[in-house]
Amino acid sequence: MPRVSQDQLEARREEILTAARACFARYGYEGATVRRLEEATGLSRGAIFHHFRDKDSLFLAVAEDDAAEMVETVARNGLVQVMRDLLTRATDPDAAGWLGTQLEVSRRVRTDPGFAERWVQRTSAIESATAERLKRQRDAGVLRDDVPLEALMRFLELAYDGLVLHLAMGRPAGDLGPVLDLVEETVRKR
Amino acid sequence: MPRVSQDQLEARREEILTAARACFARYGYEGATVRRLEEATGLSRGAIFHHFRDKDSLFLAVAEDDAAEMVETVARNGLVQVMRDLLTRATDPDAAGWLGTQLEVSRRVRTDPGFAERWVQRTSAIESATAERLKRQRDAGVLRDDVPLEALMRFLELAYDGLVLHLAMGRPAGDLGPVLDLVEETVRKR
Repeated sequence: MPRVSQDQLEARREEILTAARACFARYGYEGATVRRLEEATGLSRGAIFHHFRDKDSLFLAVAEDDAAEMVETVARNGLVQVMRDLLTRATDPDAAGWLGTQLEVSRRVRTDPGFAERWVQRTSAIESATAERLKRQRDAGVLRDDVPLEALMRFLELAYDGLVLHLAMGRPAGDLGPVLDLVEETVRKR
Repeated sequence: MPRVSQDQLEARREEILTAARACFARYGYEGATVRRLEEATGLSRGAIFHHFRDKDSLFLAVAEDDAAEMVETVARNGLVQVMRDLLTRATDPDAAGWLGTQLEVSRRVRTDPGFAERWVQRTSAIESATAERLKRQRDAGVLRDDVPLEALMRFLELAYDGLVLHLAMGRPAGDLGPVLDLVEETVRKR
């Protein structure tokens, strides 16, 4: 297959993912019918399912894409920065889509044991990235050392989950800047 | 109407709410069909909708019931205690039902503007109870005073939302005790 065609396939795949993310976020997994996915992507079901086996695979691909991006940011800048980025982008429709996907994932994890099992692998990558960054920071003397690293990590994850739920429910992002300062201060060495 | 009959009506209403809570938590709002609600309650749809106008009213009644209980606990013991109680009860099926309802509420707030409007009133009662308790604690010299009360309140709410999402996704509760200690320490005077 010539190179340009592979690039085109990849670009088309990305387009579908972006449109599907918005559709899942807006209607939920069940509500995002194949007809609505066709409207959102501007493609026929045949074209969509040429790239993704079925709706479930499409949803997992959206969620995996999001998780991969998050692993990268966590490794580079840490979970607090991921949260600050979320705040800045809270009014951006793409971010709203991303948040909706997160909540849809949480709902399917709760109601669909098969999905839950497959999802565990993805979250463990985010957890590893967070743990490794925290270890580096502790070695650099940036983190407080009177509390086990594990507790600091769970604390950051709790704040992150809280932020996701807060924003996904459409509550205002404006007053959360000082709250993230508190979160950061809690894990840092005094 | 004789007194005993009123008591019986109230008891029946409570039974329906308990069974419906579990059903909504397990299947989600859309998935909790009238047939499943009949199975869960052991009552006919006629009997159920004698007490609640329709499925939407039943769902709101479940969520309101939960919110009222939470307002009471927050006023008495504070939001950190609500979180500690949640941890203790995490393996209790009733608590799992309650958590599921919270996530269903968050999903409907996001996807149903009519529901979102009605829901704002309920959350504002929880917020008032939290704010009043924090004011009393600050006056008693228990809270740190280098950060606005508003930020402390939003911080506690963030942790609470995070805990709800964590537990509702079925993630382990066991390692969160030290995390709640960190949350409490962050808002207290050193």
